[in-house]
Amino acid sequence: MTKSTNIKQLSLNYATVKEQFTLEEAIRVCADAGIPAIAPWRDALQACGVDRAARLIKEHDLSVSSLCRGGFFPYSNAKERQASLDDNRRAIEEAAIIGAECLVLVVGGLPGHSKDIAGARTQVEEMIAEVLPDARAANMPLAIEPLHSMYAADRACVNTLGQANDICERLGKGVGVAIDVYHVWWDPDLQAEIKRAGAAGTIFGFHLCDWLVPTRDLLVDRGMMGDGVIDLPLIRSWIEDAGYNSFYEVEIFSALDWWKKPGREVVDTVIERFMTVC
Amino acid sequence: MTKSTNIKQLSLNYATVKEQFTLEEAIRVCADAGIPAIAPWRDALQACGVDRAARLIKEHDLSVSSLCRGGFFPYSNAKERQASLDDNRRAIEEAAIIGAECLVLVVGGLPGHSKDIAGARTQVEEMIAEVLPDARAANMPLAIEPLHSMYAADRACVNTLGQANDICERLGKGVGVAIDVYHVWWDPDLQAEIKRAGAAGTIFGFHLCDWLVPTRDLLVDRGMMGDGVIDLPLIRSWIEDAGYNSFYEVEIFSALDWWKKPGREVVDTVIERFMTVC
Repeated sequence: MTKSTNIKQLSLNYATVKEQFTLEEAIRVCADAGIPAIAPWRDALQACGVDRAARLIKEHDLSVSSLCRGGFFPYSNAKERQASLDDNRRAIEEAAIIGAECLVLVVGGLPGHSKDIAGARTQVEEMIAEVLPDARAANMPLAIEPLHSMYAADRACVNTLGQANDICERLGKGVGVAIDVYHVWWDPDLQAEIKRAGAAGTIFGFHLCDWLVPTRDLLVDRGMMGDGVIDLPLIRSWIEDAGYNSFYEVEIFSALDWWKKPGREVVDTVIERFMTVC
Repeated sequence: MTKSTNIKQLSLNYATVKEQFTLEEAIRVCADAGIPAIAPWRDALQACGVDRAARLIKEHDLSVSSLCRGGFFPYSNAKERQASLDDNRRAIEEAAIIGAECLVLVVGGLPGHSKDIAGARTQVEEMIAEVLPDARAANMPLAIEPLHSMYAADRACVNTLGQANDICERLGKGVGVAIDVYHVWWDPDLQAEIKRAGAAGTIFGFHLCDWLVPTRDLLVDRGMMGDGVIDLPLIRSWIEDAGYNSFYEVEIFSALDWWKKPGREVVDTVIERFMTVC
């Protein structure tokens, strides 16, 4: 049974308005609009200053549904491996400083000139295992985000919720999943894998947007909820049946449309669509 | 164990040179170049004349690895349903006339304004079952081609080899799969599902191209074998271990690159890459 939509469940992923607002501006806009949570990206967080952002977020009484992002684990050599570990440990620290509910992991694709996707997947799991003690010590959940298979080569070689759930099962406490409808809506096993993650208590985040037809760009042509073909109420009902009761994070990469509109118009539309179509 | 590459296993999918050659020209070019097989598309076949094309193919002693394509099954109403059935029955007839080894099915995505992908999948199976007696009567194998999940909405809602194998298992004799590396290379279950299809005797076709990084267009930016990230020898070894011993069909949609080059250069490159990198 789907619960009624409440703005108190909404979170704005900063990427949705990154062309219009600085992180500081986005924090103020969320507070003004009654959106109770935000999800920063690390580049904007660092530009703002991590401690300063933490203070602003607290002053405006916002929650942080996630920090985007750690990951990009696969490596070609020892130097790349160490750089990735260092960066992910910094990401865990930053996430802890701003009080994020989880650190989202975009795990990375094929390293260097590799064509070995199975090897990249092995490296991903090995590297998550390596930073997991740090995450546990910081009390920071790691949320593996399975990405659409069109990003398998260059962004994330974990491409289904089933794969992500398998990794979580093997690594144990502190690792879960961030489920973004854009990446998983097509998966015939989606309902079963959501149920599985729910039973394991590992659904750490849920992201909303829509899949447009046609999609004009592989990366930056995501749709506003309601403008595409994803059955959002259905997937939301699966998520809620699985026991998820945290934030619904709206993350829309849209160079061709929404990034060109006034930021406040985008935020108002996010709220309206969240309340009416999700 | 991978067998040595032999041009006698190569087939040219007409789409690879559709901007440069008519079907008649492509038939002559294949024969001149020593490529023993071709795979026409129906629009070019009809432009040539089906009977005339059949005669030309025979005169040039070519095999037909497949006819592209039947499918687009999901429907919004009875009229669309009947039109799809009629068109697929015509496709079966055309495939039989030219002596194709199979009719490739691109099954179609969401009908009309539907967001019900599970419903579309049910319709696909129902419609294949409906035309299957015609295919069996014509002795024409139907080859379901699972398409990359980025086409789930608008081209094919069967997006993994596992899904396609499930349908084949339920429908029985006369239905198999066409496996295109572009669509399935990322799938963590690929090796297992190839093995399953091989054991069932349902691998009816195998298509080659490559996945480029970056991919600049969802539809028409496929790569020449060797220019992308797919481990072609590995997947080929799985296919051969599964008992496949028919044609390797090269199908490259490349508006941004290969469709702009002289057709004979493209054909020579296809041969060279097939012999050296696959």
